[in-house]
Amino acid sequence: MIFLILAETEGYFVEKRRRSERIPIITKYLLENPNTLISLNYFTDFFKSAKSSISEDVSMIRDVFGEFGCGRIETISGSGGGVIYVPLVRGQDKTEFLDRLALKLSDPGRILPGGFLYMTDLVFDAQVAQKVGEIFAQYFVDKAPQYVVTIETKGIPLALMTAKALNLPLVIVRDGGRFTEGSSVSVNYISGSSRNIRTMSLTRRALPLDSRVIIVDDFMKAGGTAKGMIDLLWEFKAQVLGIGILVDTDYPKQKLVNNYYSLLKLIKVDEQAKKIQIKPVVT
Amino acid sequence: MIFLILAETEGYFVEKRRRSERIPIITKYLLENPNTLISLNYFTDFFKSAKSSISEDVSMIRDVFGEFGCGRIETISGSGGGVIYVPLVRGQDKTEFLDRLALKLSDPGRILPGGFLYMTDLVFDAQVAQKVGEIFAQYFVDKAPQYVVTIETKGIPLALMTAKALNLPLVIVRDGGRFTEGSSVSVNYISGSSRNIRTMSLTRRALPLDSRVIIVDDFMKAGGTAKGMIDLLWEFKAQVLGIGILVDTDYPKQKLVNNYYSLLKLIKVDEQAKKIQIKPVVT
Repeated sequence: MIFLILAETEGYFVEKRRRSERIPIITKYLLENPNTLISLNYFTDFFKSAKSSISEDVSMIRDVFGEFGCGRIETISGSGGGVIYVPLVRGQDKTEFLDRLALKLSDPGRILPGGFLYMTDLVFDAQVAQKVGEIFAQYFVDKAPQYVVTIETKGIPLALMTAKALNLPLVIVRDGGRFTEGSSVSVNYISGSSRNIRTMSLTRRALPLDSRVIIVDDFMKAGGTAKGMIDLLWEFKAQVLGIGILVDTDYPKQKLVNNYYSLLKLIKVDEQAKKIQIKPVVT
Repeated sequence: MIFLILAETEGYFVEKRRRSERIPIITKYLLENPNTLISLNYFTDFFKSAKSSISEDVSMIRDVFGEFGCGRIETISGSGGGVIYVPLVRGQDKTEFLDRLALKLSDPGRILPGGFLYMTDLVFDAQVAQKVGEIFAQYFVDKAPQYVVTIETKGIPLALMTAKALNLPLVIVRDGGRFTEGSSVSVNYISGSSRNIRTMSLTRRALPLDSRVIIVDDFMKAGGTAKGMIDLLWEFKAQVLGIGILVDTDYPKQKLVNNYYSLLKLIKVDEQAKKIQIKPVVT
């Protein structure tokens, strides 16, 4: 009887210690590999644990992630199955985040000569970029893209974080004509900010033909840059599944591209009155 | 007596459920906010739990993170205290990662005309960039930098991930003379790849005077670009605490900058024999 109690006690403590050891490690691994199918064998091998224990760990993480809006954990059964962490940004969190961002961007100190808006510090902020990337990932994940495409420079952090959340490669179109990466394709485009004809180019090897892609950028006014990217991607026979833009302008109403998903709408930059009007796009 | 057992049982299950709920959420929050002091009150308020319970959760995560080399969790006691997650890459993991990267980079298909090495796909890979960023962060964290500085374009993902791991703002030097962001400072520099005199510039508002900075870039040959960044940062009275480079070349031995930390050494690119020699730098 004493032996039995001892054994049970030991079993209890060992099991409890193992679970509390496993859960932080499994959580970390899932978070670092979003939208990636991970076999449960990976964890059973790593921890030398039974599959049933790992399954229970994953269920616990899944339930609490679901409850607190930390993302969806999907389990796929069968021999080719496993677990996938899908980052999700809850409606309420998205609203709060975009409200905060709009507030920061309406600081009159951000008005640049020519009526432009300084937002470089925010798009280069890794925390901001990650949240925007997760919002774009959530919006586009069902279209099953294979690549995230952006143009240098200011779209890169947002596109990188989108690619990370979707577990996809990032492809960066070069602005201008520096070709140090072998054979490339170039197109001319009209930059909305400078009204000049510019050139953008993409190395052949960066993107296989017939790929499914999404475009991510920080800003859209007339849509000339996005239009240029679509033209360029057409040369790669790519299928553009969607365009994600952090800030687009209210004017001009008619853009050079038809379908895009933007998070913030810049209504007006009044250089005289030192006033910026910007607000989240309600979807 | 029956009542007592029931109460204990309930208490046990409630407590157990709470801990297994709290740990994934606390783990996620810590991982998403590296090198950030987080007050335990944040978690006690969030979970409506006692400080002692949260402390125990954190200790459990700390112990297992320590044991499995997932990073260091520091607890700071006192009224201004809290918990900090410091990403760490273990020596063995770093070696394995750099070995794999060197192997990928020695693929002869990566040889570009002129003896250059195509590594864009790897530096634009979010997983690779994150690991490199964590290695740089680990190396430079004790110098207490305030900003991470890079130059567009290929250094951006590495620098962004370094900035994320260090919880610092990222500052991007523009290559060329497009000034759409107000008053800026420019310097000329000699690009090692083109042997041309080029211009790089940085907006005044991007970096306060007298800042403590580290520089991150993907590649160094003669060091002209790094030297240019140092010259530019001198105009901002910045203190350059260190330079992190993913790949530097064996030749020329004498670089234009003295001190830098590189992860991979490119020994030779032989266009004729289609052979690349690259190896991890042993530190």
